[in-house]
Amino acid sequence: MGTNKQVILRDYVTGFPKESDLIFKDTTIDLKIPAGSTTVLVKNLYLSCDPYMRIRMGKPDPSTAALFQPYNPGEPIYAFGVSKVIDSGHPDYTTGELIWGVVGWEEYTTFTPTPDSHHFKIQHTDIPLSYYTGLLGMPGMTAYAGFSEICSPKKGETVFVSAASGAVGQLVGQLAKIMGCYVVGSAGSNEKVDLLKNKFGFDEAFNYKEEPDLSVALKRCFPEGIDMYFENVGGSMLDAVLLNMKINGRVAVCGMISQYNLENQEGVHNLPIVLYKRIRIQGFVVADYFHKYSEFLEFVLPCIREGKITYVEDVVEGLENGPSALIGLFHGKNVGKQLIMVARD
Amino acid sequence: MGTNKQVILRDYVTGFPKESDLIFKDTTIDLKIPAGSTTVLVKNLYLSCDPYMRIRMGKPDPSTAALFQPYNPGEPIYAFGVSKVIDSGHPDYTTGELIWGVVGWEEYTTFTPTPDSHHFKIQHTDIPLSYYTGLLGMPGMTAYAGFSEICSPKKGETVFVSAASGAVGQLVGQLAKIMGCYVVGSAGSNEKVDLLKNKFGFDEAFNYKEEPDLSVALKRCFPEGIDMYFENVGGSMLDAVLLNMKINGRVAVCGMISQYNLENQEGVHNLPIVLYKRIRIQGFVVADYFHKYSEFLEFVLPCIREGKITYVEDVVEGLENGPSALIGLFHGKNVGKQLIMVARD
Repeated sequence: MGTNKQVILRDYVTGFPKESDLIFKDTTIDLKIPAGSTTVLVKNLYLSCDPYMRIRMGKPDPSTAALFQPYNPGEPIYAFGVSKVIDSGHPDYTTGELIWGVVGWEEYTTFTPTPDSHHFKIQHTDIPLSYYTGLLGMPGMTAYAGFSEICSPKKGETVFVSAASGAVGQLVGQLAKIMGCYVVGSAGSNEKVDLLKNKFGFDEAFNYKEEPDLSVALKRCFPEGIDMYFENVGGSMLDAVLLNMKINGRVAVCGMISQYNLENQEGVHNLPIVLYKRIRIQGFVVADYFHKYSEFLEFVLPCIREGKITYVEDVVEGLENGPSALIGLFHGKNVGKQLIMVARD
Repeated sequence: MGTNKQVILRDYVTGFPKESDLIFKDTTIDLKIPAGSTTVLVKNLYLSCDPYMRIRMGKPDPSTAALFQPYNPGEPIYAFGVSKVIDSGHPDYTTGELIWGVVGWEEYTTFTPTPDSHHFKIQHTDIPLSYYTGLLGMPGMTAYAGFSEICSPKKGETVFVSAASGAVGQLVGQLAKIMGCYVVGSAGSNEKVDLLKNKFGFDEAFNYKEEPDLSVALKRCFPEGIDMYFENVGGSMLDAVLLNMKINGRVAVCGMISQYNLENQEGVHNLPIVLYKRIRIQGFVVADYFHKYSEFLEFVLPCIREGKITYVEDVVEGLENGPSALIGLFHGKNVGKQLIMVARD
């Protein structure tokens, strides 16, 4: 038997989450799979903090239920992570293997593999393991699918990315540059704007908190207009983008983090422009594209090894610092991909 | 020389248009094309009243400019119509031919044909000529392109059409039935609802003005949700539809008539559902599909002749009654396709 610290959702969250919404529980766990079981026991090394988790913290809602079942109050929350197999009763998993996929916010997780459980073996360990929560994991795959499949990019087109220094945005910008696009990002601090321009190679970037008029900022960066918008924030940014879209522009809706903590969502007023400019707005979900994960790896691994794609992480150490890291995400405190190192190996 | 009564835009319109925004002018016109000219002179028989015309009545606006240049104050407004060639200096046009396309709101129009001027020869005159302002003209082509190309319908799917008894909506509903879909329409009077159910074969219909909660009305008609929404109105209807969409639903944005007369457009609050349900919202413009007009005729003409597709028109007689008919459109006064008979032949 071993101890297993867990992070529990106290109750459904309204408004911005607080640290007191997540409580710790010390439990014990059998570190051997019982004979005859087909479950897999993993030790969690890294846990990912992602904006969609806020949606799972809210009370059941028919609108979000199509995509996200809420977390159960009184039980551990769960999310993507990187883990090591400690014991396995399942023929496809062997002790010592590294995987990434959905696990509990806890030190050890037991799961039953299914075709839909989205657990991927980690084959390439010359890359930092933590990257499998970000660049090589769900957010990376999100950027790849959203940009290449939903934006339908063409060389020379213009791209705007909001929350551009985040887990997904930083890769979208770099993919756009590799594709030969002009790319501009927005972020919420000058430090992040500096990263966008000087680390990720965005052509332009701005701090949305310092812009009195988002539409004017976009017009300055895109005098000819925006072909593609990779949408991570929603609300007033979407309104400003619509004003600056080009004819036949595309909006890939990856997230709308600005709306997740609001009880009454902001209204978007410029939707008639969708008609005037023949815009396509398309929501997408990474789970629909996981079958392309090996294609993604074939593309991205050489780029990483050759230094053509870089990635910035914001790592906190220790599960006990997980709740504040997750909550910080909704205040933009993270610089780069937010994750938690639970154990080194 | 002949007299040529014209309908002139007095000045750019704000809010709902009034009859006084359109004034009549008696002019004279040479009813012979001068030697050497390549213009075409037509006598206008029917003129079409369509919602987009309101956008052209507003002052210049960078958002709408992508699609619609405003009418010029002091000059005749223009729109789709059915006309007869009176004289022609152009080798492609012959006296006596019938055409449909953009002409002035006037008794006679002179135009220079260009590849983009969208004037079509009328070859089939066993169908009422006035249909070339509606079912067989721009609105019909809009319904056909929007439904078949943008909605991506599949047999057995569910379709909702707003402004369903209008020039475009009535055909969308009938196309959906032919495709084997379940189709529901909304309209603004019980008379129109009756038409939808008993004339056009919609499976269900409701009067949106009598529904205290549009989302509840939609839930009643679509207990399993909506696969496709053919959007003609915008605003609060779109919000209610988003709540009732199915996963992977499609919204074809054909028009947003509820917004054209507002100085401050309504906010749409439920856009995060685009993400949760992986919705595609796509604006489209019929001009991008005019190359499919002969394909459309091949499909629709037999349907009309066999009585599988029917069409309801609201015809006013005389150019002098044109302004009130056009303005009535924005108050939902028309029952079916609104048009003006200017001359019988």
